[in-house]
Amino acid sequence: MQDRTQLGASERAALLALANRLADLARTETLAYFRRPDLLADSKLTEGFDPVTAADRAAELRLRQELAGSRPRDGIVGEEFPPVPSDSGLTWIIDPIDGTRGYLSGTPCWGVLIALADTDGPFLGVIDQPYIGERFIGGLGEASLSGPHGTAGLRCRNVGDISQAVLFSTFPEIGTSDECAAFGRVSAACRLTRYGMDCYAYALLALGQIDLVIEAGLKLYDIAAPLAVIEAAGGMVTDWQGGRAGDTGQIIAAANADIHAQALKLLNANS
Amino acid sequence: MQDRTQLGASERAALLALANRLADLARTETLAYFRRPDLLADSKLTEGFDPVTAADRAAELRLRQELAGSRPRDGIVGEEFPPVPSDSGLTWIIDPIDGTRGYLSGTPCWGVLIALADTDGPFLGVIDQPYIGERFIGGLGEASLSGPHGTAGLRCRNVGDISQAVLFSTFPEIGTSDECAAFGRVSAACRLTRYGMDCYAYALLALGQIDLVIEAGLKLYDIAAPLAVIEAAGGMVTDWQGGRAGDTGQIIAAANADIHAQALKLLNANS
Repeated sequence: MQDRTQLGASERAALLALANRLADLARTETLAYFRRPDLLADSKLTEGFDPVTAADRAAELRLRQELAGSRPRDGIVGEEFPPVPSDSGLTWIIDPIDGTRGYLSGTPCWGVLIALADTDGPFLGVIDQPYIGERFIGGLGEASLSGPHGTAGLRCRNVGDISQAVLFSTFPEIGTSDECAAFGRVSAACRLTRYGMDCYAYALLALGQIDLVIEAGLKLYDIAAPLAVIEAAGGMVTDWQGGRAGDTGQIIAAANADIHAQALKLLNANS
Repeated sequence: MQDRTQLGASERAALLALANRLADLARTETLAYFRRPDLLADSKLTEGFDPVTAADRAAELRLRQELAGSRPRDGIVGEEFPPVPSDSGLTWIIDPIDGTRGYLSGTPCWGVLIALADTDGPFLGVIDQPYIGERFIGGLGEASLSGPHGTAGLRCRNVGDISQAVLFSTFPEIGTSDECAAFGRVSAACRLTRYGMDCYAYALLALGQIDLVIEAGLKLYDIAAPLAVIEAAGGMVTDWQGGRAGDTGQIIAAANADIHAQALKLLNANS
């Protein structure tokens, strides 16, 4: 069984190349349907609006097909289809369209998420925005953005006091009423709170543009790639108790340990 | 004094070319500062966070300089500097960075707004997103998007029932508590409500991707260009009483008259 410490230079390079190839494939599949007037959405939930598009399914199938050919012993976890168990110790965690509501509304802030994990968690991540043509990649020595205006390094910023921090989340409802109240305590302490960016908010954190992303109700495939990208850029991603991200669905991503500690204290300051 | 009905074919073409040139200039100026780590923001308000950046001022000055050379008799209304009165009957209404909070956070959803108005209001508008390289232009016979994946026509969609509508606004706080309650009545009737897109939401409406944008507290320079683009795409933009947009700061933009009427009724259904 492999883990990240056992990968040689050539295998690391091959895994980075494969992650990029998967993102390229997902770009093609997701753009084929994006902003099409006849795009159909159905609902996975009996209550609420959670569209799953033909694009989501087509893209995930295409990535699974590529992985079955290239890395047949690796496991796969995705949103749309059952998991493939890992024989190698490594597992790919994919979500071809994170932010289906944003995708269906034509926004440019949904993304393709691709991560590679061992038993300690994700150690390589890609956040790709196909319409803009932007790719944020972190892990295995990489921490970079490539996009329409060239390439740049990813580095979380060092704003140290929460009163100067910019906070993002996807929905103002956040989650349960307790979760919403906890978020509200952090939001009230920050300089600015903004909504609506889906996974793009995590990319902005890794790029050093914002300081905090706090969400609830996330699945492993929502957070695996952002976690790897942000850790590669020097930031921190945990659950709301400061533990391993992905188990409770509650996520706090912070640009640095100072901001993380201040936000965590407010999240847990039940009044 | 000129109005839109007196413009000949060559003057119409010249005005469209000038609007594009202004948007090109604003693109260069705004991208020069976008995502720069040393970007400084100060506050125009004693309360709250309303950054005005060096980019905003530099871009508005550049556009005013171009207009003074090209169309010295036209008026100018902008966010950052005093108005220039019109001797021609025509007035340019410009906001080089609509969505300064989104700009300062590194998002790709702020935009350059350029409009041309006569005494009846705006009749030509540009919504430009410099980072993505997308330009939405409407009026004088034009209604088109040009962007990284080619060009497309702008045409609002024909979803007729508000229960199927997608609603956008920039902030969940909307405005006063009464304004927030009125917005909430519409939001509760819609299929989906999303936040955070600034002027990009109006572009998505003109592109036929969403059905409603409702906001309060807007200035003339925030809504002039979106109004012209949306009207050119077949949609409607009014205030919350169904009157001329821009006087009260309350804006409703709708994809069609059916959705507009249903939303207007809910906005004014004080319980």
